[in-house]
Amino acid sequence: MKCSSHNREKNEGESAPYDENTLKTISKRARLSEGEEAARRILREIYRYGRVGTKDLAYATRLPVPVVAAVRRELEKMGLVSRKAGAVLTSKGEEYVKNILGLSMKGSLLCEACSGKTIIIKEEFRSIVEKLERYANLRPRPYTWLDQAFGIPETAVLRALFMLEEGDVEGRKIIFLGDDDLTSIATGLLGASRKITVIDIDGRLLELISDISRSEGISIECVHHDLRKPLPNELRNTYDVVFTDPPYTIQGLKLFLSRGIDALRKRKCASLYLSFAHKPPEEMLSLQVAISEMGLFIREMITRFNKYEGAEMFANTTFLAKLETTEEAHPSIVGPFDGKIYTGEVSPTIRRYKCKCGYEIDVGISKEFQTIEDLKSQGCPQCGRKKGFKMIRRYAI
Amino acid sequence: MKCSSHNREKNEGESAPYDENTLKTISKRARLSEGEEAARRILREIYRYGRVGTKDLAYATRLPVPVVAAVRRELEKMGLVSRKAGAVLTSKGEEYVKNILGLSMKGSLLCEACSGKTIIIKEEFRSIVEKLERYANLRPRPYTWLDQAFGIPETAVLRALFMLEEGDVEGRKIIFLGDDDLTSIATGLLGASRKITVIDIDGRLLELISDISRSEGISIECVHHDLRKPLPNELRNTYDVVFTDPPYTIQGLKLFLSRGIDALRKRKCASLYLSFAHKPPEEMLSLQVAISEMGLFIREMITRFNKYEGAEMFANTTFLAKLETTEEAHPSIVGPFDGKIYTGEVSPTIRRYKCKCGYEIDVGISKEFQTIEDLKSQGCPQCGRKKGFKMIRRYAI
Repeated sequence: MKCSSHNREKNEGESAPYDENTLKTISKRARLSEGEEAARRILREIYRYGRVGTKDLAYATRLPVPVVAAVRRELEKMGLVSRKAGAVLTSKGEEYVKNILGLSMKGSLLCEACSGKTIIIKEEFRSIVEKLERYANLRPRPYTWLDQAFGIPETAVLRALFMLEEGDVEGRKIIFLGDDDLTSIATGLLGASRKITVIDIDGRLLELISDISRSEGISIECVHHDLRKPLPNELRNTYDVVFTDPPYTIQGLKLFLSRGIDALRKRKCASLYLSFAHKPPEEMLSLQVAISEMGLFIREMITRFNKYEGAEMFANTTFLAKLETTEEAHPSIVGPFDGKIYTGEVSPTIRRYKCKCGYEIDVGISKEFQTIEDLKSQGCPQCGRKKGFKMIRRYAI
Repeated sequence: MKCSSHNREKNEGESAPYDENTLKTISKRARLSEGEEAARRILREIYRYGRVGTKDLAYATRLPVPVVAAVRRELEKMGLVSRKAGAVLTSKGEEYVKNILGLSMKGSLLCEACSGKTIIIKEEFRSIVEKLERYANLRPRPYTWLDQAFGIPETAVLRALFMLEEGDVEGRKIIFLGDDDLTSIATGLLGASRKITVIDIDGRLLELISDISRSEGISIECVHHDLRKPLPNELRNTYDVVFTDPPYTIQGLKLFLSRGIDALRKRKCASLYLSFAHKPPEEMLSLQVAISEMGLFIREMITRFNKYEGAEMFANTTFLAKLETTEEAHPSIVGPFDGKIYTGEVSPTIRRYKCKCGYEIDVGISKEFQTIEDLKSQGCPQCGRKKGFKMIRRYAI
């Protein structure tokens, strides 16, 4: 890492092939919901790390992989970036980020010990990670129409430890609203909670959690239930802590948090842990308004806390927020809910990919391939290739 | 650190001198705005760390020092805690936290490298901390009526590095709305920004910042201005980044963020860094509603990021939030503002302290001693003692 030693005054008279409007142009062409700042961030990450693949760029910038790929293509067209086993700056690009954007630092200042997640997995908890690694392999194929995407085993353990540090595991009754990441198992293996309940709509997952729970002797209660229906009476006003990684739509958030508030024993400063995708600014605002409207506030919010596999549409990472109740906490959805909550229902989008063999494949909720991960795992129907697909069109149904 | 190896089912029939209502009783007696969860948190910290002083307890629980002291006294009365150079659990207390609260873990899981702040100060930036330590000693005595409280030098450097990591220093125009912590100096010393401006109502601080800036050659622009008046025209719609540690009242927050939005060059995902006290739940909610109403959202929120000296009323620590603009970001206060913004104006409170000699001293905005720190530094008017003051009454004016 290096910082140059003097503040730079921009030379206003200097003519350049690229100027500060270049970012705006890129952002318009790639239709970036985050505007010029996202284009800047992508260039910055390429400059800081030298050569970086599209998935890593997506993770670092919290932007969907196809969005990053689109920006990268624009940057290539403009001659700022070239592709050599990852994106690298051309000499023009290097000049642009140094002279116009003023970048000078290489590498990262994020804490290397915890990667900015605030919590570390001490040696004594390594065995839990190893167990989770074994158990994670037993998970059934994700139902993408339920917005399932599997968190990596380390994420489940980090979540459990984060809650433990916050005082929300020891002696606590904890409810997991959906748990395709097996966070309940990681939490149960800490052996410190009073009760753990998992509610899920997917019987396959509950069966797996039950089996593991039995063999580990951690007595997790599994409840097969669709949260669009109200919480069963015996689960209401009972729990100390809620954990959820709901469908990444505003309605999904409202519904799951509403059921969470119903599950909590009524008091102030009760914790609800929320994992959610880094959304475009307007949606981030809507979700925070929805949280406030339920009388909840954000106590902590750690960006890129959770990591997933095969979830390119949200950059394989989401944030972890610790929400707390006020005296006025109340569900915004009461009774049965028959609205749309899953991503595919709320904004059904088809993406058309082109294989290197020329074959074009539609990917989306109603198609043979529901996600790009499905396409990659099964391969091009014409030539069988499993990579190198390029998104050429995107449209709402 | 240890976790017991089995989940505990509470024995419902077991009779105990203390039960789960004990926390509620403590919370009522000490009039805790955070309710029973705060009482639990205090006991948990004492259990985890063995012997802990009131200031450290306040820091760990984010509660004002006098509030923690009041809870500690209740715990002493109940026989759960005794005082021996810090709070320690009695054997009854030990039994209570283990059997009723279910606590079993000692120590902390927070990352030791960064203490949960996500950023570390690499070796190459150590010289900036050393400089800040020298400069911090030159700061004039805080004007408590302006809600000044001095952040420690390391905090100023961590803030600057946090912004640098986020891409908000290199090539950026940054405005500091108030800067009694000299964060502008730490940022300037990174030598990577395009322009730094500091606005403050306190000419003494601006003089110091100017002097340091001149001797370090970092050309910080200082503007003497009361933010209750609108931003000077030449500062509007100009900056890339805002940093503020405003008065810890809702109006203070609204005013400073409004001026911040005015200062920003209009675009999405522009950053406003906000340091603010950990307030009781209802106030946390109000401040998040105020943030949303201005079309801003919280991107990250790191608890206890900032450390201060002599700021017992907010536990010597505040959070750091990175806010970002949406397309609809707009100030909620436009034009001149003649409302109250400082803590002492909004909720003028007098605290009566009793010295060990028996003398009683009123502390508050209109009194000889404005804060407990003033009293401690000048000593009891009767006997000269500089510590051991006990708060015996608290009333609003």
